[in-house]
Amino acid sequence: MPDVTIIDVSPRDGLQNDPKPVSTEEKQQLVRMLVDAGVEKVEVTSFVHPKKVPQMADAKELVHSLAHMEDLEPIVLIPNLKGYERTKELRVSEINWVSAATETFNAKNIGMSIDENMEQFLKVLGEAKQDGIKTCFSVAVSFGCPYEGEVDEEQVLRIVRRVKEAGVDRIGIADTIGIATPDQVERLMSKVLEIAGTTPVTIHLHDTRGLGLANAYMAYRAGVRIFETSASGIGGCPFAPGAAGNLATEDLVYLFERMNISTGIDFEKLLDAADYAAILSSKNPLGRIRHVERKKEKGN
Amino acid sequence: MPDVTIIDVSPRDGLQNDPKPVSTEEKQQLVRMLVDAGVEKVEVTSFVHPKKVPQMADAKELVHSLAHMEDLEPIVLIPNLKGYERTKELRVSEINWVSAATETFNAKNIGMSIDENMEQFLKVLGEAKQDGIKTCFSVAVSFGCPYEGEVDEEQVLRIVRRVKEAGVDRIGIADTIGIATPDQVERLMSKVLEIAGTTPVTIHLHDTRGLGLANAYMAYRAGVRIFETSASGIGGCPFAPGAAGNLATEDLVYLFERMNISTGIDFEKLLDAADYAAILSSKNPLGRIRHVERKKEKGN
Repeated sequence: MPDVTIIDVSPRDGLQNDPKPVSTEEKQQLVRMLVDAGVEKVEVTSFVHPKKVPQMADAKELVHSLAHMEDLEPIVLIPNLKGYERTKELRVSEINWVSAATETFNAKNIGMSIDENMEQFLKVLGEAKQDGIKTCFSVAVSFGCPYEGEVDEEQVLRIVRRVKEAGVDRIGIADTIGIATPDQVERLMSKVLEIAGTTPVTIHLHDTRGLGLANAYMAYRAGVRIFETSASGIGGCPFAPGAAGNLATEDLVYLFERMNISTGIDFEKLLDAADYAAILSSKNPLGRIRHVERKKEKGN
Repeated sequence: MPDVTIIDVSPRDGLQNDPKPVSTEEKQQLVRMLVDAGVEKVEVTSFVHPKKVPQMADAKELVHSLAHMEDLEPIVLIPNLKGYERTKELRVSEINWVSAATETFNAKNIGMSIDENMEQFLKVLGEAKQDGIKTCFSVAVSFGCPYEGEVDEEQVLRIVRRVKEAGVDRIGIADTIGIATPDQVERLMSKVLEIAGTTPVTIHLHDTRGLGLANAYMAYRAGVRIFETSASGIGGCPFAPGAAGNLATEDLVYLFERMNISTGIDFEKLLDAADYAAILSSKNPLGRIRHVERKKEKGN
């Protein structure tokens, strides 16, 4: 067993807002390359309304096309009950349900209050348990909100307590806009882990302001062992070339492997997957470590 | 008094290997903008052989031209006794003497063994004390060497003990090639601080593999309060566009200010200085936080 688990979210969070169309075959290829590199848990798509997120319109088709990949544990994002219904009869390991820590973000993002969202989630949780599908509850904007600014820790912890009591299989804490600082990560994640007990806890990181790795390291120190990152760091705002998006999977894997913390991932193959992710993304970003390694190979 | 001190090394480490010629006036302007932003300690140049480092050939002229800047505490890098002689009659606050932690790096970089270098330093230290000039002894490649690979902590600590005993005014530990990991930084800096006692300790960071801020944060946690960074992150290998160089001053200032750790630096003015540093550099890099902030201003 590796010391840490990396969930790559590039096919979902990396591509969802990208204006450049990406075909089902290309997404399938990205997932295949990630699985080949040893990344078994991949958030492959999102069952959102196709009009709201056209890039994810092929969600059903994509998940179906991945059914034969034995080593893959496909995770899909679900925003509501309807989204869950669409996953029926598909091979899905886990659903990732999202609610923001703030009312404003929830209103703008999913058109529901935190309580309305929770009510729907509890229904889905019941169904998923019957269907034998695992559930993750992710708390978006846990470290800061683009509309409300600072987020009180208690807002996050209240949600965490509620889903823990409801029997969720995994709790996700997301730095959706890449605003967290390492001291804040250590403080909040310690409290979340205490509430979560034996329930696995994930941190979802962005690198917008260059703090992704510092935050990941402090989450690790606090006891977090599951990380959500994106190959090549694709994602974030696609209209800002050069700005960092999600934390790059290869940057985090590099950090862990350098510290002798095993990830179970083949680094060279991961760089290949990251190269491919960068080609698919309209931002074509260059993860820090990927740049260094690929330059080295070319003899520069 | 600010909680931490930032020494900006962009005029020296940021420009020294850059193939694009930068005039004395431009360097002067960069220093002026840094001082205007509240960065009082600036490593302005290096008294090396002009044939070896043509970009620093105007060292004497530059330092002379900065004499009128009252708020500036100019630091200059000195590689040998001859370099020290060249600083005489110039207004210099502190000299920064460099030796590597490894014999191979020293041989290739300055053509001296560690012991030969130390012998010369002790002479300079004596002279500097008489001249009323402070001295810093910086240990290059303390976390990893491009020739020898891993560096034993004891190699670094042995040098630190020797210069501490000799009465140096500051001890610098440098991650010259940006290879350090946060756990390693915490471990080594704790030991260095213990030996240093009341002698101030600096960490000099590069961001080559994206770990600059994680390393800075762990150095801070270990007790380090002085950091050497470069405006806009200029420096590093100038032939790898896109690859990170020195840790960007504005990225570190952003981190500290977000954590309510005061730096005494005006952030907006620092971004102006960073913009200017980027223009001077042939890499024209874009520090992470600068990208976010400057985009914001433009309304993107």
